[in-house]
Amino acid sequence: MWKHDTPGIPDSLFDQDEAVPGPTKEEVRVITICKAHLCRGQRVLDVGCGTGSLTVEAALQVAPTGTVFAIDEDEKAVELTRKNVVKFAVQDYVHVTRGKAPEDLFSLPMVDAVLVGGGASTEGALEAACRKLKVGGRIVVNAIMLESACKALEELQRLGMQDVEATLVSVAKGKAVTSGTMMMARNPVVVISATKAEVEAWRESLSE
Amino acid sequence: MWKHDTPGIPDSLFDQDEAVPGPTKEEVRVITICKAHLCRGQRVLDVGCGTGSLTVEAALQVAPTGTVFAIDEDEKAVELTRKNVVKFAVQDYVHVTRGKAPEDLFSLPMVDAVLVGGGASTEGALEAACRKLKVGGRIVVNAIMLESACKALEELQRLGMQDVEATLVSVAKGKAVTSGTMMMARNPVVVISATKAEVEAWRESLSE
Amino acid sequence: MWKHDTPGIPDSLFDQDEAVPGPTKEEVRVITICKAHLCRGQRVLDVGCGTGSLTVEAALQVAPTGTVFAIDEDEKAVELTRKNVVKFAVQDYVHVTRGKAPEDLFSLPMVDAVLVGGGASTEGALEAACRKLKVGGRIVVNAIMLESACKALEELQRLGMQDVEATLVSVAKGKAVTSGTMMMARNPVVVISATKAEVEAWRESLSE
Amino acid sequence: MWKHDTPGIPDSLFDQDEAVPGPTKEEVRVITICKAHLCRGQRVLDVGCGTGSLTVEAALQVAPTGTVFAIDEDEKAVELTRKNVVKFAVQDYVHVTRGKAPEDLFSLPMVDAVLVGGGASTEGALEAACRKLKVGGRIVVNAIMLESACKALEELQRLGMQDVEATLVSVAKGKAVTSGTMMMARNPVVVISATKAEVEAWRESLSE
Repeated sequence: MWKHDTPGIPDSLFDQDEAVPGPTKEEVRVITICKAHLCRGQRVLDVGCGTGSLTVEAALQVAPTGTVFAIDEDEKAVELTRKNVVKFAVQDYVHVTRGKAPEDLFSLPMVDAVLVGGGASTEGALEAACRKLKVGGRIVVNAIMLESACKALEELQRLGMQDVEATLVSVAKGKAVTSGTMMMARNPVVVISATKAEVEAWRESLSE
Repeated sequence: MWKHDTPGIPDSLFDQDEAVPGPTKEEVRVITICKAHLCRGQRVLDVGCGTGSLTVEAALQVAPTGTVFAIDEDEKAVELTRKNVVKFAVQDYVHVTRGKAPEDLFSLPMVDAVLVGGGASTEGALEAACRKLKVGGRIVVNAIMLESACKALEELQRLGMQDVEATLVSVAKGKAVTSGTMMMARNPVVVISATKAEVEAWRESLSE
Repeated sequence: MWKHDTPGIPDSLFDQDEAVPGPTKEEVRVITICKAHLCRGQRVLDVGCGTGSLTVEAALQVAPTGTVFAIDEDEKAVELTRKNVVKFAVQDYVHVTRGKAPEDLFSLPMVDAVLVGGGASTEGALEAACRKLKVGGRIVVNAIMLESACKALEELQRLGMQDVEATLVSVAKGKAVTSGTMMMARNPVVVISATKAEVEAWRESLSE
Repeated sequence: MWKHDTPGIPDSLFDQDEAVPGPTKEEVRVITICKAHLCRGQRVLDVGCGTGSLTVEAALQVAPTGTVFAIDEDEKAVELTRKNVVKFAVQDYVHVTRGKAPEDLFSLPMVDAVLVGGGASTEGALEAACRKLKVGGRIVVNAIMLESACKALEELQRLGMQDVEATLVSVAKGKAVTSGTMMMARNPVVVISATKAEVEAWRESLSE
């Protein structure tokens, strides 16, 4: 289905469902996957997996010795992610479960990277996600609302995460029409990323 | 209908028609009107007037002693422009005609500013429009295609226009949803503007 | 100096000073002025006037019967604004004072529009500014930081302002180089605007 | 130096030189590398390698069995690329040569992907680059000028390339200041990509 080693599966190759937002658009998806600094063999957590486009791309990077744990509270998103996981033949490296953050993250193993999906993240979700991160691990949050971008930035700084970075990504795709190439805008996304600090710095931040 | 002296009528106040592209979005519209450097009493030509949103805004700036000549080859655009012109009560300052550029521009009087609409401009249209400009007059082209932006830039330079400037404008509008303000992108527009040079410079450019 | 009725003075015409941020770039400036829905004869308050570029543009719209009150806590900004006010010959319609928001806004008269400048607005500044607004008046805030955009949105909603709107404006200016037109990006600005609600709605919001 | 399997080396890790433009910014770089659809073992051609940032990222994707051929006509760019190639320990997979497109591309072997750098590409460069592509191979052009974007689009279509796509990428990076996160814009880039068509389609396009 996708025989290349680099991420960047065209959006149209993913099964989609009107009831499930997404997929994360190709250009934002590759920036997200790349900011997660993935390696073969790693474990990745995808919170709010939606269509599963990030789940599939992450699985292709960490397979065959790594694993992606995908979670979404919406049953339709879980089904759609499973469909896309099978479509791209990464079912051996992915666990998809229906559940909510933060409560359903506690039982998961420690991971090397966390991806947090498009909408507003619920209270406590980012902290729970960061707790699951190994020291040196990466978290990447995609915010499509101004407020969720601000909250994520504030929360990651409060949690003592390092190298907190926000990147506003605006993409317009050319569409060939008879007289030329019309530029069709996609909604801007704020991609927020950070690295889990050394244990001591991290503990201190939580005890504050 | 619009009691303010500054341009910037909200998009939703214009009558619209699915068969007619537009209106030019508020933010691009005010940049376009302002780059035309309008004054009360001036004459303005709006080529490819579409919904008539630029026609109306220009008319509000040049009224009551100025005039806007609006032209479009599409009958529905002409009707819609007439509707919006009446809606904003500027019918005494606007002449709307159905016609094509360049052939139907020749009979028009000389103007202080020309606005050229969203699609690709047809061969010869920009030259005919610039010929209608008084020395020191302004032309503003809105390009929604990469190729029409390049062609307009090249053509205006070939015509010896001065201060040729291209500005890529990307706007995303916040939409209030339950959990925050989602940013909804509008397609980027390249706004190209220039000033008609002194007569001698202009003639030389045409004789080359 | 600027003989046109529309706003949109080129940035280079303003006197500048390395120690004072600004001027607000032309395209953001015209959007800001237009979202303020100005009319001749109105009173405008410019909080954090910086170089005075918005002060001058607003003054040109409300003159000769209106007035702009410009305030900045930085002495250099006050001086620079005064310089530009004289340069554009609007000194008869502008009062520039050194002062801080909110404390130095209380003594000002009620106004039709408030403009709030580029940086983070201080605690209480937006509330004080909104108190100075007549019912139906407009406030426009330019935010260059994610956090100040979020805070302004939240604060304006808390204050019961109506039609609260956020617009992310990204502009790139073409720069002519030997082989073509290079696109040079300017920093994105979130332009936030709102209308002062009827007195009752407004009072209720403050008593909450 | 970079132990991750995904591209996305931070800009600051590359050696830089004032006399050499670049490096291609991280976000545009990962989109470029991903649109090239790279795989381990492939051969890649980097035309106009500049600082060598794309060379290094491509090499990390195709190593240890693939090769990147990097070429630049500027001696300083060649030196800087060599420096960065050594810095990231990919010297065994990279050939850097000083030379011009198209004339110095003819002697190179056929490749799976071509990357074409930031400035205007010289006459004949894209055709020569496409000739070096295997059927099914990918070309990705980064255009920082409107005209070079248009020319590349036109040329790739003329050459009978398939899936010609233009993507306007605008990025603003958050910069932490005392009061929040200021958004600092980077210049927009048009990323143009295409796939080499079947041999017959390709030959026909050239004979036209």
